[in-house]
Amino acid sequence: MTEDLSAGLFHFELLATEGPARAGIFHTAHGPLPTPLYAPVGTQATVKSLTPRQLAEAGAELVLANTYHLYLRPGAEVVARLGGLHAFMGWPGPLLTDSGGFQVFSLGGGRGHKSLRTIDDDGVTFHSHLDGSRHRFTPERVMEIEQLLGADIAMVLDECAPPDDYDYNVQALRRTHAWAERCQAAHTRPDQALFGIVQGGIFPDLREESARVLTEMGFPGYAIGGLSVGETKAQLLDTLALTTPLLPTHKPRYLMGVGTPEDLVEGVARGVDLFDCVLPTRVARNGQAILRTGRLNLRNARFAEDSVPLDETCACYTCQTFSRAYLRHLVMAKEILAATLLSIHNLHTMLTLIKELREAILVGRFEDYRAAFWEARKREA
Amino acid sequence: MTEDLSAGLFHFELLATEGPARAGIFHTAHGPLPTPLYAPVGTQATVKSLTPRQLAEAGAELVLANTYHLYLRPGAEVVARLGGLHAFMGWPGPLLTDSGGFQVFSLGGGRGHKSLRTIDDDGVTFHSHLDGSRHRFTPERVMEIEQLLGADIAMVLDECAPPDDYDYNVQALRRTHAWAERCQAAHTRPDQALFGIVQGGIFPDLREESARVLTEMGFPGYAIGGLSVGETKAQLLDTLALTTPLLPTHKPRYLMGVGTPEDLVEGVARGVDLFDCVLPTRVARNGQAILRTGRLNLRNARFAEDSVPLDETCACYTCQTFSRAYLRHLVMAKEILAATLLSIHNLHTMLTLIKELREAILVGRFEDYRAAFWEARKREA
Repeated sequence: MTEDLSAGLFHFELLATEGPARAGIFHTAHGPLPTPLYAPVGTQATVKSLTPRQLAEAGAELVLANTYHLYLRPGAEVVARLGGLHAFMGWPGPLLTDSGGFQVFSLGGGRGHKSLRTIDDDGVTFHSHLDGSRHRFTPERVMEIEQLLGADIAMVLDECAPPDDYDYNVQALRRTHAWAERCQAAHTRPDQALFGIVQGGIFPDLREESARVLTEMGFPGYAIGGLSVGETKAQLLDTLALTTPLLPTHKPRYLMGVGTPEDLVEGVARGVDLFDCVLPTRVARNGQAILRTGRLNLRNARFAEDSVPLDETCACYTCQTFSRAYLRHLVMAKEILAATLLSIHNLHTMLTLIKELREAILVGRFEDYRAAFWEARKREA
Repeated sequence: MTEDLSAGLFHFELLATEGPARAGIFHTAHGPLPTPLYAPVGTQATVKSLTPRQLAEAGAELVLANTYHLYLRPGAEVVARLGGLHAFMGWPGPLLTDSGGFQVFSLGGGRGHKSLRTIDDDGVTFHSHLDGSRHRFTPERVMEIEQLLGADIAMVLDECAPPDDYDYNVQALRRTHAWAERCQAAHTRPDQALFGIVQGGIFPDLREESARVLTEMGFPGYAIGGLSVGETKAQLLDTLALTTPLLPTHKPRYLMGVGTPEDLVEGVARGVDLFDCVLPTRVARNGQAILRTGRLNLRNARFAEDSVPLDETCACYTCQTFSRAYLRHLVMAKEILAATLLSIHNLHTMLTLIKELREAILVGRFEDYRAAFWEARKREA
């Protein structure tokens, strides 16, 4: 089905490359997505503390929502009856839903904690973190849920294994590939692109196998999963560098759940087209501002009478209107507006950075931009 | 001093009356204020959960901030060094500060609770609710603080007594009048209007005495204090009706801390020009939407799949974009955006109501409007 539409919907136009770095456009039913691209996360059908209007003003193009959370509350059938996720949350642009698998596997609990889920070859049974009620995700049920939500991009159900456990990854990969096939068979919605997810931990042979199997299945896009879950930064970057060349050139590549400024620069340098991360809004709620060169913790007393904006070069509403001293006051007074204004700034910073990376690739100056980025960080450190 | 500026700054233009109801314009250094007027409350230099831009879009003209809170955190001197309250909080329009007296007297504690403040004729000593530190407000110190904050309208320090205790009110009135005189003597800022506050509880003779004494002092505006603090609604309305005729016709009248839709209609009907209240933003944070005809509690399960806006006749961003079902979802999921979107709607409802009351007075149809308002409430009840 996606093949029939390859000239239009879900077509990935590759506009320019510089080494592994790529700039392109991915076409969705809710508009074109310029890549590389950074997607803010709206877990419960809201990017926390921001209106869709503020989100658009900050420069967002694609928003991610979490299937696990929306399945539990308010329920995928409810969202569908209310016109689907776009109408429900008032976001007119493209949306992406994950499969819920990552959240469900995170219910595993640590050493000495009771696990809230059990996995078998057919799917995963889990208990809601909200009320303890019992639920089951199979590849088919997850496809049903994601199609009810109706995002422009949906993800297959996969199993996310500890990145450095080889035997575990061998087993998880077998399941992940079988589930990808079942997801593909169950997925019928023509206005929704279903992305495959390459797993394999930090092991080159497993990543190679996973990329080969999933490429043969023919998805309109591919995620690189199982990273940023415990491995070192060097392992993440090495795994990325070896995985992206194994994927089809003319399909977008999505690095899930990764997104500091430096991750963006180095991910793009290794051929990633799409990122998402809760970081900008999560650290905002914790009183932190993201700058390209580091972070400001506004609880620090040195900001108490600091009359300059968070970033004097930033064009966001927060920096154009408020001082660090005011933002610190809001943080110390536990005011909701602190989260909103810091989220606006943090997202604007990330979204502007990714746009600049794209522009740099388009004019063949990505490596210059990358060098300048690291130079500026060194100066500030 | 205010007399010298009476033709410009702080001049109150009375444009129309209908019975006791009045429509006018009060001129401040940050622009003209159309009356009757409703001021949202920004306790800690932020109207909770809203940006100044959202506040302006909801129709706000004047914003109130609390001197007690800002004095404790971040400190009036800090605000002054950062350019004053307007610059600090990014609000370009007129601002009003209370005296802090009400908050300090509220530290009195109830039966069996240790009082955090002691009053004497010279002022009041209190302990901070934040860290227990000891502070003292005198009329002179409060004037210093309010002038450092730099709002367009400042309030004198008064003593707010239990509304139905005659002897207490006699004593408090003596102090209130002495403090008003000291405030007036200490107040020098030419771009700030200092309002007197009429006290006297529910007692006509005391209200009469207070209005006479304060009118003789000659303030550019008068608040009616000590209401909405325990008396019945009938006592509040009766006290209003007897107090406003005692005040100068050509000065604005401010009913402090009162502000449901019905309070606005009946307050205006009794000659009030200015209101403030935390209600719209406070009930928003509690998941409640204000309609002219009552309130919606969005926790109610009947809204779970309700696809219509809060109010189909409302032009606010929330009603133009989101369903009751989505807002209920945000409330149930404890999302910050629930507070923001409900605050936008609630403020828009109150601010539109007061604008319509003004328009009705200007065209001589206030009593028709008032009758229709109550008729609609009866139909909905």
